[in-house]
Amino acid sequence: MFQSVITGSGAYIPTEIKRNNDFLDQQFYADNKPLTQPAQQIIKKFQQITGIEERRYVVPNINTSDIGFLAAEAAILDAGINPEEIDQIIVAHNFGDVQENGRQSVMVPAIACNIKQKLGILNPNCIAYDLIFGCPGWLQGVIQMDGLFKAGMAKKALVIGAETLSRVIDKYDRDSMIFSDGAGAIIMESIEMPEKQQGILSSCAQTYSYSEADYINMGISFSPVPDPEKMYIKMLGRKVYEFALLHVPQAMKLCLDKSGMAITDVKKIFIHQANEKMDEAIIERFYALYGISTYPEDVLPMCIQWLGNSSVATIPTLYDLVLKHQIPEHALEPGDLIMFASVGAGMNINAVCYRY
Amino acid sequence: MFQSVITGSGAYIPTEIKRNNDFLDQQFYADNKPLTQPAQQIIKKFQQITGIEERRYVVPNINTSDIGFLAAEAAILDAGINPEEIDQIIVAHNFGDVQENGRQSVMVPAIACNIKQKLGILNPNCIAYDLIFGCPGWLQGVIQMDGLFKAGMAKKALVIGAETLSRVIDKYDRDSMIFSDGAGAIIMESIEMPEKQQGILSSCAQTYSYSEADYINMGISFSPVPDPEKMYIKMLGRKVYEFALLHVPQAMKLCLDKSGMAITDVKKIFIHQANEKMDEAIIERFYALYGISTYPEDVLPMCIQWLGNSSVATIPTLYDLVLKHQIPEHALEPGDLIMFASVGAGMNINAVCYRY
Repeated sequence: MFQSVITGSGAYIPTEIKRNNDFLDQQFYADNKPLTQPAQQIIKKFQQITGIEERRYVVPNINTSDIGFLAAEAAILDAGINPEEIDQIIVAHNFGDVQENGRQSVMVPAIACNIKQKLGILNPNCIAYDLIFGCPGWLQGVIQMDGLFKAGMAKKALVIGAETLSRVIDKYDRDSMIFSDGAGAIIMESIEMPEKQQGILSSCAQTYSYSEADYINMGISFSPVPDPEKMYIKMLGRKVYEFALLHVPQAMKLCLDKSGMAITDVKKIFIHQANEKMDEAIIERFYALYGISTYPEDVLPMCIQWLGNSSVATIPTLYDLVLKHQIPEHALEPGDLIMFASVGAGMNINAVCYRY
Repeated sequence: MFQSVITGSGAYIPTEIKRNNDFLDQQFYADNKPLTQPAQQIIKKFQQITGIEERRYVVPNINTSDIGFLAAEAAILDAGINPEEIDQIIVAHNFGDVQENGRQSVMVPAIACNIKQKLGILNPNCIAYDLIFGCPGWLQGVIQMDGLFKAGMAKKALVIGAETLSRVIDKYDRDSMIFSDGAGAIIMESIEMPEKQQGILSSCAQTYSYSEADYINMGISFSPVPDPEKMYIKMLGRKVYEFALLHVPQAMKLCLDKSGMAITDVKKIFIHQANEKMDEAIIERFYALYGISTYPEDVLPMCIQWLGNSSVATIPTLYDLVLKHQIPEHALEPGDLIMFASVGAGMNINAVCYRY
C-alpha cells in the first residue's frame, strides 16, 4: 500500500523579538472606548490567558513569500530530495505578500509560484498554488495532498504555511498581541510499504460558516480616528474560544476513531498555537471524551510562549522544532502515533492522525 | 467505475456594460510616456487583437463573494441537488473581495466560507476553501476535485470561479480594457457507471515560474503621478502571447493523448477567454500538432467579444452560456468530447478532456 509520509521539515523563525513589555506604551481600545486598566494589568491578563510572553516579526523588507521560501528550502534539504522531483507545491496563507506599512495583499502570481521561482525549480509539471482555509490551511494542504497521492496525481509534495500577521494587526486592539509572523514547511511523499507502519492514518476537516463565518474576519481599526478604508484582522475572542471548545475535541475524536487507534496510543498532539489556555482546554475536553480526566503531561508540545500565533505557520514550525530537538522535553520515536489539529477563520477545523 | 461528471452550471453576468468607446477620453501611458496615437486608433487596434467590443463590471456595492454566490446558487438549482449534500466548495479567485475604490483584498474568512454562508449550508462536513492559481484556477479546482473524488474524499462538489478585475485595473494602462468581472460555477458529482460514457477522461496541469513568474503580476500605475503604494494587475502582453502559443497547444495535446481520443473526436473547446486572436492562434497550433492546418469552424465557442476577460470566471461562464443556449451557434449533444483549457498568471496552464 501507499502511505503519505512526511520526509522532511523546515521552519523560518523571524528575527525581530517583540516582548509583552514592548506594548506598555500602547493605548488599547474596545467598544469605541479606551481601555482604562493600566497597560501592565492588560498585558498581565493577556499573558495569563494566551501564554504568550513574546512573539516574532519579520524585518521590513521581508514578505510572506520570502519566509515561505526559506522554510521550504530547509524542508527540501532535510528530506534530502531533488527539488525537481516535487509534483505539487501548496502554500497556505491568508494575506499573500503584504508590504511593511502596505495594505494590499499581493498574490498575483500565487505565493506558491513565487516560491517555486525562488527555489529555482524548472520542472513545469510541478504545479504551484495557494490554499486559503484560515489558520488550518497548512494542515488542510497536508490532508489534500494525502488525497491527491491516493488518486495517483502526485508522489512528492511541498506543503508550506507562511504568514506575516504583523502587517495586518490593529495596534489599538489588544488582540494584536496574539499574532506573529512565521513559516513552516514539509516534504510529503507517497511511499509504498507493506503495512501502515508510517504516515497518515486518518483525517477530518470541517467548515462551520452558517453563524460562525464572522468570528474571525476583517474590520476597521479600534483607533478613535480609524481609516475607514484600511482593514485589520479582527476576532470575536469569546466566540472563538467557545466554538473551539465545543467542536475541536469532537473533530479530533472523529479523526482518532477513524484511525482505529486508542487514545492511550497518542504520544504527541501538535495543535495550532492559537492561545495556550484554549489549546489546553481543547486537549482536556478531547481526553474527557474518552473518560480521561487528566491528559498525559508530555503530550502537548507548545511554542506559543515565545513565537505567538503565526496562523498557518504554527503547526509545521512546532513540528520542525520538536524534530530538530529545539524543544528538548519533547521527542518522537519511530512508530509513535501523533495527532495534528487546527482551528481558525472560516470557521474551519481539521485533524490528522499520523504514524511517525 | 466512478466518473467525475458536471451535473449543473451557473453564471453571473454583471449588469454594467462598458463599451470600447467609453475609453475614448482616457489618456493611456506606456514606458512613462503618454501614448501619442489618437484614442480611436488605440481602441481600434485593441479590438482587432483581443476581439473585445465591450465588457461587464459589477455595480459598486457588489463584491467577488456576492457574484460567486449568485453563480453557485444558479448551478445548484441547475443540478437539482440539495446543497446540504455538497462535500466541498472550492472558489478560485486572485484578489478576494476588493471594495469599490478600495485596495485591500479581503479573504478572511475565505471567499468559499463566505459563499457557503450565503448559500445557507449548515452541514459542517462541507468544507470550503479558496484556490489561487491565476486565471486557470477554476479549471484547476475541477482537476483537483476529480482527484479528491478518486481518493474517495468527496462525492459532490461546488467549483466556483469569481473575480472583479474592474477593482484592480490601472485605467492609465491600455491593458485595462481587456479585463472584466464575472462569476461561473458548476456542480461536480462522482457517479458510478459501467464505462467512461460521461465525465472527465484526462487532465494536465503545469506551472512555469522559473523565468515566467512576472509575466502577469502586480505593479504601480502607469499614471504620470502614480501612488507608489497602490498596485494593479500588470501584464507583459507580448511575453504572455509568446508563452501561450509555445506551451498551451503542447499541454492540450498531452491531455488529449492521455484520454486516448483522437483530435477529430473533439467537438468543442472551451478555452479561457484571454484574447480572441491569441485563443485562435493557440487552437490553430493545437490542431497543427496533429497535422491539421485548419481547425473546424464550429469548435470554438467564444464570449470575449461582449464579456471581456474575467479571469477564473471565463470558462464556467462560457460553458454555462452554451449549455443554456445563449450562444445559439454552439450546442452540445450527449457523448460529445469537449476540452477545457486555460493559461494565466503563474504562469500556469491546464487542460481537461471531458465526455459530455
